[in-house]
Amino acid sequence: MDIYEESLEFHRRLGGKISVVSKAPINDRKDLSLMYTPGVARACEEIAKNVDQAYELTIKKNMVAVVTDGSAVLGLGNIGAHAAIPVMEGKAVLFKEYADLDAFPICIQTQDSREVINIVRNIAPVFGGVNLEDIAAPRCFEIEEQLQDIGIPVFHDDQHGTAIVLYAALLNAATLAGKSFKDLRVVINGSGAAGTAIAYMLLGAGYEATGCEPVKDVIACDTQGIISRTRSDIQSNPAKARLALITNKEQLSGALEDALRDADVFIGVSVGNRVTVDMVKSMAPKPLIFAMANPIPEIMPDLAKSAGAFIVGTGRSDFPNQVNNVLAFPGVFRGAIDARAPRITNAMKMAAARALAAATTDLSTEKVLPSALEKGVAFKVAAAVAEAWKVSPR
Amino acid sequence: MDIYEESLEFHRRLGGKISVVSKAPINDRKDLSLMYTPGVARACEEIAKNVDQAYELTIKKNMVAVVTDGSAVLGLGNIGAHAAIPVMEGKAVLFKEYADLDAFPICIQTQDSREVINIVRNIAPVFGGVNLEDIAAPRCFEIEEQLQDIGIPVFHDDQHGTAIVLYAALLNAATLAGKSFKDLRVVINGSGAAGTAIAYMLLGAGYEATGCEPVKDVIACDTQGIISRTRSDIQSNPAKARLALITNKEQLSGALEDALRDADVFIGVSVGNRVTVDMVKSMAPKPLIFAMANPIPEIMPDLAKSAGAFIVGTGRSDFPNQVNNVLAFPGVFRGAIDARAPRITNAMKMAAARALAAATTDLSTEKVLPSALEKGVAFKVAAAVAEAWKVSPR
Repeated sequence: MDIYEESLEFHRRLGGKISVVSKAPINDRKDLSLMYTPGVARACEEIAKNVDQAYELTIKKNMVAVVTDGSAVLGLGNIGAHAAIPVMEGKAVLFKEYADLDAFPICIQTQDSREVINIVRNIAPVFGGVNLEDIAAPRCFEIEEQLQDIGIPVFHDDQHGTAIVLYAALLNAATLAGKSFKDLRVVINGSGAAGTAIAYMLLGAGYEATGCEPVKDVIACDTQGIISRTRSDIQSNPAKARLALITNKEQLSGALEDALRDADVFIGVSVGNRVTVDMVKSMAPKPLIFAMANPIPEIMPDLAKSAGAFIVGTGRSDFPNQVNNVLAFPGVFRGAIDARAPRITNAMKMAAARALAAATTDLSTEKVLPSALEKGVAFKVAAAVAEAWKVSPR
Repeated sequence: MDIYEESLEFHRRLGGKISVVSKAPINDRKDLSLMYTPGVARACEEIAKNVDQAYELTIKKNMVAVVTDGSAVLGLGNIGAHAAIPVMEGKAVLFKEYADLDAFPICIQTQDSREVINIVRNIAPVFGGVNLEDIAAPRCFEIEEQLQDIGIPVFHDDQHGTAIVLYAALLNAATLAGKSFKDLRVVINGSGAAGTAIAYMLLGAGYEATGCEPVKDVIACDTQGIISRTRSDIQSNPAKARLALITNKEQLSGALEDALRDADVFIGVSVGNRVTVDMVKSMAPKPLIFAMANPIPEIMPDLAKSAGAFIVGTGRSDFPNQVNNVLAFPGVFRGAIDARAPRITNAMKMAAARALAAATTDLSTEKVLPSALEKGVAFKVAAAVAEAWKVSPR
């Protein structure tokens, strides 16, 4: 039985991967009076007087909503709210296991952005943070942006979680390759949620106040090839039009293979088998390859290595250098919620990336990131994220 | 320290009464692959093909949403979504302790009925049932009614939970008093959510198919006195206008004391100290008193007894005959969800009331209901509710 069938059986046996439990038992009338009526009225009154007391007296202090509309689930696409539940439950498990945060899946049946925004805004009281998940671009950008004022951190993991982990990996990979970060020429294949967030972070766009050093250039590609200001279809997609304004300094046009010539870094957030041996050979010396398509990478690690790749990372756990969001989101939320930050700033994201790079032990070309199973990492990331908010709370 | 201050300290110490836990650990890569990517994709695909598989593969099979808009919380009134959280958490604890159901609080910040309806409808995928809680009348009627088609049971506990438990208590009390149920003249003081649902259930309105025997008459009162078709303010409130059509057969007018003359039963779902010794003395022989206002009953049990009351019940745990919703809602949801019923029919509510009455051991004037601490009761109620759906699934 392969891992997929085994997982199906596992889900069937468990009938749901998470459970809601009481932190205290009800054994007698006294317990009932403390937990529920009449005693509970006193906690309600306290919050009615001062809404901040919800952080002291309720689950809000430790509860994350894992919100999706089911429009871009894993590599499966727009499979809807019900079919997304197993992923959101899995995410809740990871929040618990890695950062001791409670998390609960909110799977929304509408894919109207305004409705999604309205729903999240209205159910926010019980939550200390909102992890947006598996929402298709470009709607994910609007939804995240419109929710930045609700008073609790709202973070689209597919964008920023991926960007943070990739950034950390690239910091370490560049050091190992003896390449200067600020001289890197980077090609990103895939310009959805993850690709866009990675481009912004590498170029320092929006990160000016974090003292980061941007890479020299990023060339973003999509299914139509290199994204440039002059490409005729770009203006009809505002997110790509914005991306075109900050990427591709030389205004190259053409296909992925044209972009890769003399590039230092390939970042794939697209589909499998898009990169050939010849393309890797056309890159600058010591190419750094992050082929993160799942389950089939843009190029298999052995092929990339044979073509001269200095470091290869993928999204898979069965190859070295797994770029896995679980290295970022638990610590990011732990830190933001501990600091009671009302949002997650770019300074906090940059701090997370740097902390993650610094937390990598036994650094080598086979290990540019901590293992996804190293559970202490989240608390190091959390400390850096909380500190970044305290230093610059705005 | 009184129970209120002790409860406040308890809430502060716990920092939230419920927690979300994983049903299985993540210790190695294999666990991660089964719980999350890549294996989880298989469960998603299965649900994408057949949405009913969500009941086999996810938390939906055992998860209740406890939904409020914070508009009528306990006796505290419209204190808002944040201040309602402690009550909703308490409810989640009770679901777990009494019926082994998982439950999660959804505290909604809008009090626009259409928005509340839209939100519940859209977040339904992850839930197997919706317990509406502490939503003010008359909006609670519309919200519950408009949500009956969403495919999972939606039940406003303040209405039907209270009605079920009161009905069970009255069945037993009438037997003990030697009064025929169908000859009872009942006065209800308070015509909000609970009072209205009790009136409908006692009069069998909507319960025709359940073979129940209605009481002779119900006279409903509100703060303006007896509700009648001729009262000038009634037509402006559709819920009260409907109530006026089925109650008060003799079209009495006047105050609560006029209604109580020669009545067999007083049911209070209003505020404390509304009923005097003289009013009880004016009732028919062996009056049955259920004074459920919290924390101060409409008349204190010792006073009512001194005035000749045969049986006195209250909402409080420190007096005999506590009418507590926890005797109903856990079993009602357990039964409905076990039967995979898409809604909770009146036949199911009636079955719950009868099962609850039948589950009362050591029946006496001091014990017309099971104790709120008898945990096996919920499963007896559940069996009756599930059976009622199987017999009449419509």
